Amino acid sequence: MDRVRNALERIRPVNEAFYVMAQRHLDNLTKPLGSLGRLEEFARRLVAITENNNPVLDKKVIFTFAGDHGVVHEGVSAYPKDVTAQMVFNFLRGGAGINVLARLAGADVIVVDIGVDFDFGETEGLMKMKVMRGTRNFAKGPAMAREEAVRCLEVGVELADGYARKGYKIFGTGDMGIGNTTPSSAIASVLTGRSVPEVTGRGTGISEESLRRKIKVIEDAIRLNKPDASDGVDVLSKIGGAEIGGIAGLILGAASNRIPVVVDGLISTAGACIAYAMEPSTRDYMFSAHNSVEIGQKAMLEKMGLKPILDLDMRLGEGTGAALAMVLIEAGLKIYQEMATFGEAGVSDEIVN
Amino acid sequence: MDRVRNALERIRPVNEAFYVMAQRHLDNLTKPLGSLGRLEEFARRLVAITENNNPVLDKKVIFTFAGDHGVVHEGVSAYPKDVTAQMVFNFLRGGAGINVLARLAGADVIVVDIGVDFDFGETEGLMKMKVMRGTRNFAKGPAMAREEAVRCLEVGVELADGYARKGYKIFGTGDMGIGNTTPSSAIASVLTGRSVPEVTGRGTGISEESLRRKIKVIEDAIRLNKPDASDGVDVLSKIGGAEIGGIAGLILGAASNRIPVVVDGLISTAGACIAYAMEPSTRDYMFSAHNSVEIGQKAMLEKMGLKPILDLDMRLGEGTGAALAMVLIEAGLKIYQEMATFGEAGVSDEIVN
Repeated sequence: MDRVRNALERIRPVNEAFYVMAQRHLDNLTKPLGSLGRLEEFARRLVAITENNNPVLDKKVIFTFAGDHGVVHEGVSAYPKDVTAQMVFNFLRGGAGINVLARLAGADVIVVDIGVDFDFGETEGLMKMKVMRGTRNFAKGPAMAREEAVRCLEVGVELADGYARKGYKIFGTGDMGIGNTTPSSAIASVLTGRSVPEVTGRGTGISEESLRRKIKVIEDAIRLNKPDASDGVDVLSKIGGAEIGGIAGLILGAASNRIPVVVDGLISTAGACIAYAMEPSTRDYMFSAHNSVEIGQKAMLEKMGLKPILDLDMRLGEGTGAALAMVLIEAGLKIYQEMATFGEAGVSDEIVN
Repeated sequence: MDRVRNALERIRPVNEAFYVMAQRHLDNLTKPLGSLGRLEEFARRLVAITENNNPVLDKKVIFTFAGDHGVVHEGVSAYPKDVTAQMVFNFLRGGAGINVLARLAGADVIVVDIGVDFDFGETEGLMKMKVMRGTRNFAKGPAMAREEAVRCLEVGVELADGYARKGYKIFGTGDMGIGNTTPSSAIASVLTGRSVPEVTGRGTGISEESLRRKIKVIEDAIRLNKPDASDGVDVLSKIGGAEIGGIAGLILGAASNRIPVVVDGLISTAGACIAYAMEPSTRDYMFSAHNSVEIGQKAMLEKMGLKPILDLDMRLGEGTGAALAMVLIEAGLKIYQEMATFGEAGVSDEIVN
């Protein structure tokens, strides 16, 4: 827990004076005031997060955390559990959605085995940080011991610290784990206070009947495990997942290193909500990548006061939304850095009406 | 008119069989069915528009059409008219928002003087296709003669034909013209049947009082000029603008060359609506880049059945939204071309629940 505690102690809210300073420059650029909307917001936030009037985003990385889930035994997922490990190999060969979109964004993809129920042996390219071979079925008891949940957070913090040292300037979060919309919806319900049906969707595409079962499994699990909403680690351990813990830890580590972190869809937002429960100032360092089709995400974003960047009806996970959103965040920075001012361009900024 | 008539005759609806064929491939990729949402739509549409199962988007171009507006004499704009020409120079020096975002998207920017009230002489880099030195004040009579409106359309078609021949694979539209939200809102009202206040916004940022004046100017102009909603050229000539005509022509030319065209915000959508009024199948070739802050755009998109790709509170024009949207359209294509299939990756596509 020392590593996590240390990260928590280093997290401060961003200094809002930087927003004002950055906006002053934006208002001098050759465009009507505020007319680049959220691109201007992205630029302001990058300046404030980094406390640097000329931030760089040259090295980008998306962490795709993979883990399995004991709760799949309850029939909550459309796909068999083996797909988690199969997809890890697909990531490593570069054939998955996240590989394609990260290439487009100019971001590296780091695939982290934090909890897959498969022995990858010496598989090349995989970040081997396995905390457990899948969580336990939280329909029967806690998904993880508290110490395991802490270890998952530590993995995330360790990666954030390491990649900050390597000079990476922006992080994205991603996930792979058959069954992981179930713990994510459970977390959404507990941390936002919404009812389970309000925050539970069809994941990879289950039937109406399976959706009803999924809702009942989550409701029963919350009653059985009694997660304490005021204790992020308790929620993570009882109804969470290893990859969700890794994502939460990565966000703590990003905030403690003053590195912007782009939070993908439902599963990543559940991790973000755990980090937010532990330290609300983490929010200042997060960008919400996109509005997932999965309904549980919206409630958590509202709770944290985050507005998603994209809305493309996506629900794949892996970090795919984060990769796309990184391009738009970078667009905001380029506007900030490359546009001419009214003075430089000899354009009138006189308002006549 | 021959060039325009020729383009109109070559426009066909896209062949929907290509959507089905493209979706079959998308459904084989290593992801849950439909889970990449609109990225899949973009890929399907690119395949259908080009009638090519392996489309390329290597050469991209955004056309920024510039023109002035006699109606600025009515006090409808926040900025003085001189800014149109000043911004043209800014575009040519690479310092404007569109330059920055087009570089990000890997697109060329072609700046077209179609109707600026300024003599650019031998200015290098400018596409000199001036039809007129600003439109006439449509508060007093038609903005253009019908022949002038046709000439604007021809300029757009000519550019589309020329850049198709040069091997460009996707076009974006953009505009610069102080005062041009006024004709755009007028067009929106006439072509959608909505009332003027429903489709009129603050443009570059006018006061409440100026907004009331702008609405009255548009209402009076429609009453005075009686544009015929069933005749796109009549609407364009009476209450339009040169750059709006250029954009409409470019879209006609894009559709006739089977080239996808990304339509920017309010002004570009007014151009698109003129093209749509002339030939509804042009819609099949359009991508709506983004949801502008300017309210008139939404009514026109609904009329054409288009859904914007981005929603970033932008209202700059120039083609800035089109540049950003191009990146996402390209993301859809890359998914289509680069992701592994279930078979290639050895990933199970068995549905269990």
